[in-house]
Amino acid sequence: MTDDRFDRDALKGLASSLLSRGGLAPEMAEVVAEFLVQTDELGVTTHGLSMVPYYLPELKSRNMTASGAHEVVRDNRVTMVWDGNYLPGHWLMKQAIDTCVERAGEFGMAALAIRRSHHIGCLSTLTRRAADKGFVCYIATSDPSGQWVAPYGGTEPLLTPNPWAIGYPGDGHPVLIDTCASITTVSKVREHINTGTRFAHPWMLDANGQATTDPTVVNATPKGSILPVGGVDHGHKGFAMGLMVEMLTQALSGQGRADAPTRWGGNVFVQVMDPDAFGGREDFLRQVGTLNAACRANRPIPGGGAVRIPGDRAFEAAVRSRSAGVRMPGEVWTRVAACAAELGVSLPEPVAG
Amino acid sequence: MTDDRFDRDALKGLASSLLSRGGLAPEMAEVVAEFLVQTDELGVTTHGLSMVPYYLPELKSRNMTASGAHEVVRDNRVTMVWDGNYLPGHWLMKQAIDTCVERAGEFGMAALAIRRSHHIGCLSTLTRRAADKGFVCYIATSDPSGQWVAPYGGTEPLLTPNPWAIGYPGDGHPVLIDTCASITTVSKVREHINTGTRFAHPWMLDANGQATTDPTVVNATPKGSILPVGGVDHGHKGFAMGLMVEMLTQALSGQGRADAPTRWGGNVFVQVMDPDAFGGREDFLRQVGTLNAACRANRPIPGGGAVRIPGDRAFEAAVRSRSAGVRMPGEVWTRVAACAAELGVSLPEPVAG
Repeated sequence: MTDDRFDRDALKGLASSLLSRGGLAPEMAEVVAEFLVQTDELGVTTHGLSMVPYYLPELKSRNMTASGAHEVVRDNRVTMVWDGNYLPGHWLMKQAIDTCVERAGEFGMAALAIRRSHHIGCLSTLTRRAADKGFVCYIATSDPSGQWVAPYGGTEPLLTPNPWAIGYPGDGHPVLIDTCASITTVSKVREHINTGTRFAHPWMLDANGQATTDPTVVNATPKGSILPVGGVDHGHKGFAMGLMVEMLTQALSGQGRADAPTRWGGNVFVQVMDPDAFGGREDFLRQVGTLNAACRANRPIPGGGAVRIPGDRAFEAAVRSRSAGVRMPGEVWTRVAACAAELGVSLPEPVAG
Repeated sequence: MTDDRFDRDALKGLASSLLSRGGLAPEMAEVVAEFLVQTDELGVTTHGLSMVPYYLPELKSRNMTASGAHEVVRDNRVTMVWDGNYLPGHWLMKQAIDTCVERAGEFGMAALAIRRSHHIGCLSTLTRRAADKGFVCYIATSDPSGQWVAPYGGTEPLLTPNPWAIGYPGDGHPVLIDTCASITTVSKVREHINTGTRFAHPWMLDANGQATTDPTVVNATPKGSILPVGGVDHGHKGFAMGLMVEMLTQALSGQGRADAPTRWGGNVFVQVMDPDAFGGREDFLRQVGTLNAACRANRPIPGGGAVRIPGDRAFEAAVRSRSAGVRMPGEVWTRVAACAAELGVSLPEPVAG
């Protein structure tokens, strides 16, 4: 299975058609499709069009709400809470980021906690929307119905991996940090299970509290878990991060594990800051540029490549996507093509390579 | 050398006398002394009165400014920048937190970036000040003149350990997360060098990019470094955290590595949020309480103790300090006593044990 490249508008049209045939309101399908293609353009192919085959059953089962609006629970101008009503995460996040950018422009900073969103996808694609406009954008997300990571010192899965990201203006292109509070993610665990491979390092914990490279411990009885960042020897640091993300996304939004939700949901915290409301954009870029340059000039570990700043690889992928088309892994295309066949949507041809 | 316990007011009087005899303005000495004793009360004896023997030479060399005021560089109501003029960090942080708490009460949230503070001490003692009043408080700090941690993939020390902390209301007592972007800290490295011991895990990186337990690599030529959180196999996560802290504290404050400062300095970012300006205090506590209880009830790793929430140990130490007096490690008392002898300040007697 080779990886082909496609025209971005053709991919967007395909994703949009698939989602609207799957029942999603056309204006929402259009927004979700745009973000999915942007994600593939950044080279994050795990969270781009590859999500469509996951979203379609969610629409069918009505776990993803197909139309309607979110509820504004509180609007305090600088701080806000929304109830997302399990609408598509990309649709909610576009409005969330644009609202926070507008408020940050007025007040210097703004934050919004969202309860009950559906999946918000690739965080870098979202923070980049604000960073490209010159703002600092922090996003954290958790699923209060999910249990994958044990608290440090414990053995029972309790927290989600709890992704967080921050994007901010940099030299040439934004810095796009996109990480989580556990060493690895649920999708990586599934990938290793599906391919029958172990992790290169002991990133899992079995139910007896032993670190292991075996991803299948999450399906054992009793269940094992994913280790927090720092692993066995300093996992209290990842656990702390995980607690912080659950507090920001659940305690501040007023909905979470205390409500024992059984439906998959994404709780979100978004914060946007305007450098001009602090020390000013020029000095901000001067500091970021100096630090980034010093990092890139740092003598690499022998045998390793040059030091990269988070966002460098995404920027290179975006440049390549513009000139050569957007890369689709063969495995993703096979799954998307199956959905297209089922829904009677025609597939675009790859661009000439 | 045994550890004695002392009356908190006696310790505060001692620290205050020492600092004012050392040249610090009396009203500043009083505030710094109060925070140092609060730190010892929480059991963080590395950052309590033990700092006095470090601060006195800083006052003498005028690296710590002994009087005067900070400069308000920008006051945008919700966002602020101060120039700390290298005043004592505790003095600045008391005002910083109280200002942010007041503004968060008015606007829902507020943030302040400080350039050129002196050492701000134990972050938990500071975040607790806001958390005890019902607010969420995040603090991050870096030293733009310091180089201890290499960027992930590199070998040359460039970043500081970049501590960050978040405190927020919890069930019974606040959650007090206090950590940093590197696996270990400069003071732990010095402690291991002084005692001629190695780390239990490979938390250092030599100049050739090899992980090691040897703390002395920081003094080698060329210099080794402290590994970021995640170490060799997932240190890109700690590196990302470190970049974020430097951005918040230096880029937002408009002063940092681009100015190549040679004087030790603490750049700070403080943010305070009011749960009542989001989903409300009651729901906030309900979520935090449920998660904390679930963590503490998690089946421990065989042979290990019960899972603790960050802040649990500090709370127990504070209760013990109130009933039995504040514990002073013998090694700290020896150093403090030497300062007292030099400055002609009398030492309090321990409380009856």
